[in-house]
Amino acid sequence: MEVQKKLLNSVDSCVDEALCGTVRSHGALALLRGHRVVLRSDLGNLKGKVALLSGGGSGHEPAHAGYIGVGMLSGVVAGGVFASPPPASILAAILSLWQAGATGVLLVVKNYTGDRLNFGLAAEQARAQGVPVNMLIVADDCAFSQSTKAGRRGLCGTVFVHKLVGAMAEEGMLLDTIVSRVNEITKVIGTLGVSLSPCSVPGCAPSFQLPPGEMELGLGIHGEPGIRRSKVASADEVVKIMIDHMTDPSSQSHLPMKSGDIVVLCVNNLGALSCLEMAVVTRSAINCLEDRGIVVARVMSGSFMTSLEMAGMSLSIMKTDQEILRLFDAKTSAPAWPNLSSESVSGRKWSVDPPPQTGSHKFTHSPGPLSGVMQTVLEAVCDSLLQKQEELNMLDRAAGDGDCGNTHASAAKAIQEWLQSHTVPGCPGQLLTILATVVQETMGGSSGALYSIFLTAAVRPLMGESDAAAWAKAVHAGTEAIKRYGGAEPGDRTMLDALCPAVEELQRLLSSPPAGAMAILQAAVERAEAGADSTRSLSAKAGRASYVATQHQTQPDPGAVAVAAILRAVFEALGGGCP
Amino acid sequence: MEVQKKLLNSVDSCVDEALCGTVRSHGALALLRGHRVVLRSDLGNLKGKVALLSGGGSGHEPAHAGYIGVGMLSGVVAGGVFASPPPASILAAILSLWQAGATGVLLVVKNYTGDRLNFGLAAEQARAQGVPVNMLIVADDCAFSQSTKAGRRGLCGTVFVHKLVGAMAEEGMLLDTIVSRVNEITKVIGTLGVSLSPCSVPGCAPSFQLPPGEMELGLGIHGEPGIRRSKVASADEVVKIMIDHMTDPSSQSHLPMKSGDIVVLCVNNLGALSCLEMAVVTRSAINCLEDRGIVVARVMSGSFMTSLEMAGMSLSIMKTDQEILRLFDAKTSAPAWPNLSSESVSGRKWSVDPPPQTGSHKFTHSPGPLSGVMQTVLEAVCDSLLQKQEELNMLDRAAGDGDCGNTHASAAKAIQEWLQSHTVPGCPGQLLTILATVVQETMGGSSGALYSIFLTAAVRPLMGESDAAAWAKAVHAGTEAIKRYGGAEPGDRTMLDALCPAVEELQRLLSSPPAGAMAILQAAVERAEAGADSTRSLSAKAGRASYVATQHQTQPDPGAVAVAAILRAVFEALGGGCP
Repeated sequence: MEVQKKLLNSVDSCVDEALCGTVRSHGALALLRGHRVVLRSDLGNLKGKVALLSGGGSGHEPAHAGYIGVGMLSGVVAGGVFASPPPASILAAILSLWQAGATGVLLVVKNYTGDRLNFGLAAEQARAQGVPVNMLIVADDCAFSQSTKAGRRGLCGTVFVHKLVGAMAEEGMLLDTIVSRVNEITKVIGTLGVSLSPCSVPGCAPSFQLPPGEMELGLGIHGEPGIRRSKVASADEVVKIMIDHMTDPSSQSHLPMKSGDIVVLCVNNLGALSCLEMAVVTRSAINCLEDRGIVVARVMSGSFMTSLEMAGMSLSIMKTDQEILRLFDAKTSAPAWPNLSSESVSGRKWSVDPPPQTGSHKFTHSPGPLSGVMQTVLEAVCDSLLQKQEELNMLDRAAGDGDCGNTHASAAKAIQEWLQSHTVPGCPGQLLTILATVVQETMGGSSGALYSIFLTAAVRPLMGESDAAAWAKAVHAGTEAIKRYGGAEPGDRTMLDALCPAVEELQRLLSSPPAGAMAILQAAVERAEAGADSTRSLSAKAGRASYVATQHQTQPDPGAVAVAAILRAVFEALGGGCP
Repeated sequence: MEVQKKLLNSVDSCVDEALCGTVRSHGALALLRGHRVVLRSDLGNLKGKVALLSGGGSGHEPAHAGYIGVGMLSGVVAGGVFASPPPASILAAILSLWQAGATGVLLVVKNYTGDRLNFGLAAEQARAQGVPVNMLIVADDCAFSQSTKAGRRGLCGTVFVHKLVGAMAEEGMLLDTIVSRVNEITKVIGTLGVSLSPCSVPGCAPSFQLPPGEMELGLGIHGEPGIRRSKVASADEVVKIMIDHMTDPSSQSHLPMKSGDIVVLCVNNLGALSCLEMAVVTRSAINCLEDRGIVVARVMSGSFMTSLEMAGMSLSIMKTDQEILRLFDAKTSAPAWPNLSSESVSGRKWSVDPPPQTGSHKFTHSPGPLSGVMQTVLEAVCDSLLQKQEELNMLDRAAGDGDCGNTHASAAKAIQEWLQSHTVPGCPGQLLTILATVVQETMGGSSGALYSIFLTAAVRPLMGESDAAAWAKAVHAGTEAIKRYGGAEPGDRTMLDALCPAVEELQRLLSSPPAGAMAILQAAVERAEAGADSTRSLSAKAGRASYVATQHQTQPDPGAVAVAAILRAVFEALGGGCP
């Protein structure tokens, strides 16, 4: 089995470097020199308060250093990857907190033999030096139905404990009070994990093998064996299996839960599950709990207690009351604590209605003097595009995917259909608004978006105005919008090579007398056609054709040809150009 | 190629379900019914302010919905996985923000053709309805040395932009002012990614293949090809290659940087890199920048703009000044914004000295009347354990790893060595403190920790006291500590099966006259030996032997035998038991 690729400098240095990276990133943290110990950088603020120390093996980041800060832990001690930290470092941490003026030190320890013994030894050593020390064991694992002497493992529910003891200590609660309160709370915390992949300690092969398509339920956070393997099920099913197991009264490690209970839910990424999957699982978990009549008061979803790069997640559930929620919601500066809201998840209105009439154009149009001529022009444009369908496809085959004629034909047919069942409004701006919608819905792809952008941007000059100058302003506005959003310029072998010269010509309409309009339009058409033809010698710099080698392109750009054809159809429908 | 295992319900539903999970988790968010649009749930607070809309394809979670909140975005529009969202939904979002009373809407768009066109079209449609809309394109990719018409891609630097425009809008800045300021800021943001693995769109095979041991530099966040493949280098080397490339003046997409510049650094997990690796890389990046004389003002490290489950990371760097830092530090309720401190990373004192004398015992001991007898007893205990080394190993081979005699012998030899170069202090408590340290340092494993815990917990009754009652209290305290931290009880086939009966007997010393002490000690030794022998019939419930089937255990537990042997050695050295 191949050793997992990892971005590290060395196996030996990775824990110390990770601690360094974490500490350096956060002003709230400081490293205790000579130890794998991270402390609050504002130790002075511990004066007169209970200090909180946690820790354990590395490989569970952001646990535990990420939970240091005002309102959470005072310090943590890190061991090697998946290894318990040495008692000497734990003692050094305890003594540092004590010397900072703490009234006592509470050790929050996950239930693993190594951690119990090493934290326990340091606790006894500190006591022998007169430091009031107490130890709290977190054992939230709901995996095993039969009790074992080693007891339930400490998993992600520990993060709940960090938060609650942190808030209690910040409020100035006494050591014994904190311990007795939290000992009650830990009884109503349960956690269960599921994994789609193993993880691997740096320098080692994966901790276990999981066949393709299988998942394992109930693993420990060091990749210790779980309770069951099965085919990967759907997110909803996996979550249901987990919550069923976690709350099964026949399991000695179950979390008793009944309808009406109020809970905090933590959906914890064990390492490599995508955030997309995490969000889907979070939805499943909220729904599954609510289906049982459980009130979900808060949800945290993210990476809180990881197992290196294991692709999996765990669910932690804590039964709460108003007092626990108050402590849970209390502010903290701990780097890994998420930005949560203090609004109840269950019962909240979480969707709103869209504004009326969005995207549709239900307002009524009245026909006007221009309706007839605009209908004639539109019919001519559609006919022209349908006639040119094969020519445009052929041009597109040389440099694109050969469907340029088809997409233009789709739009033309849709406009024809629309014309059959609607009256053309007298206001050109209203017509362009309608055409933009029709084109957007039927043409698709970049072309559809670009034509819609052109038509939409062209609307404003034509609301209430309809003379030649207004049309000139409209095509200018549309063309500028295409340039702005499409990111292309003339010379890039796109529709702009036909459009821009024509628009430049049409700007003369702004100052010319009405009688000269058709001549200007004719010149614009001719410049569009010349521009389209000039694309034979251009290499594509935007659009799909930009991926094709230049030497394959001796034909003009189909998008530019289409634009020239549209302009000619307009011109001819207006009575111009007849020989 | 196998389709990647994923925890989803279906390919078709995953985007909507992920949005639902995200929205339901955070009180700050609301879903716009009928669209893949997430809005601030407190839309009323937008009144009189500029609203900020972003979005794009899904698969980049927590982008973009995670950046919605007070002080960041007002809303986001999500497309399918890696697909641009439809203009109709973008328009619906714009109109919702406008109708909530915003003075205008700024679209923050990553530079991809689809997003430019779809957001552009919606912008034009909203403008046609009279909504003041502006669009900001983020193009922070530093991968390509030659400029392309499509321009630089929008990557994780977009998150910086979300934060800054959010703070500006919250302060009531006008739309045009925001746009012109941020257009300057986007010029000094650069991003480059590296990946050790591909990602895969749900239901599809991985987006590309990467041979074992190789990494790819400069990928896009949809798995688009990068600029270079090479063997996976060390974290320090990879970061150096990346920052060299990002700041190389010969590259058209480089970020100009010189010594003295002040920057914000974002180390972004592309999906599946372990948090341990992320922390190591973060350290590398801070060091690499500081080595160039760059002042690192802030660091954010985590999952901000992911590419599904891609194992890789990107570095984003933003050059800053005091004004940008002020905006960056401004509070936000956005769920995915991390809990950062506003202290400069560079120049901060990030380590502290440990308390003096931790873990060592440099205080001086004075010999006393008891020194001689305690030395005699200790020598006898060491002799006994060395004599029994092979017997204990043999017993351990039946149920453990066969080194029980060796670990006890290590401790015995270390104590013998200590006795040769030190005087035994007259205070028994001081002696036990020393022995605890010697045992902890030489014995190792659970046994070392348990003996050290016993010795350390036994110290306090023997500080200043040395009569039989004090010794009885001491062994009781030590035994209770072993039970507390070791989690075992008598009957679990451990050392406690010898120790507990003896301690029970020794409690009689608390009330007996001094003359009866040796008789009580004798009875305690005999009860310890009987207890050790009784373990033949016990099945192990704690310790390593608990993994061995019961029927293989017909020998007594070596840990219990060792305890009985120690007690007998003490008894005999005190003159008892001589026939």
